[in-house]
Amino acid sequence: MYIVHVHVTVKREFIDAFKSASIKNAENSIREPGIQRFDVMQSMEEPAQFVLVEVYATKEETLLHKETNHYKKWRDTVENMMEKPRKSIKYVNLFPNDSNW
Amino acid sequence: MYIVHVHVTVKREFIDAFKSASIKNAENSIREPGIQRFDVMQSMEEPAQFVLVEVYATKEETLLHKETNHYKKWRDTVENMMEKPRKSIKYVNLFPNDSNW
Repeated sequence: MYIVHVHVTVKREFIDAFKSASIKNAENSIREPGIQRFDVMQSMEEPAQFVLVEVYATKEETLLHKETNHYKKWRDTVENMMEKPRKSIKYVNLFPNDSNW
Repeated sequence: MYIVHVHVTVKREFIDAFKSASIKNAENSIREPGIQRFDVMQSMEEPAQFVLVEVYATKEETLLHKETNHYKKWRDTVENMMEKPRKSIKYVNLFPNDSNW
């Protein structure tokens, strides 16, 4: 799989708005055929820190995702909420294997 | 859910050994009743960097996990492979909700 962890830190006044926009984006993203998981999580210790865990079948699906209306709406909505630029780290799965996602 | 991301950087000569030990640990951990996911992933850009994504029902299950033989074996096996101390970050899920893990 082609896994992307998107690390986001928002300004504190936007915590709730970011949560709402990101849940909406995840609800739509998980319906894309090439997306196996689209998890949104919030740090317990630093509530302004979030990670999106996005699991794609291949890199191509990451490009298709960025063409969707829900992604573009999320991107534009959260742009001004960020405390600093978001950071994406790409991973390959070691466990489970591809057939078990 | 009670989600733990364990960030590990290993010395380069231990990359394969760490992968092997961590896959074995994940295969056993995912059978624990309180563990919903136990994913092991490797950075595409920095092959010595790994993340374990551990999804527990509650904090209590994290304590039970640390009492298992497979966890203790993994902990002792990888101890000397680390380039620096590993770092755990705890998260709560925003999406999906608890019943969809």
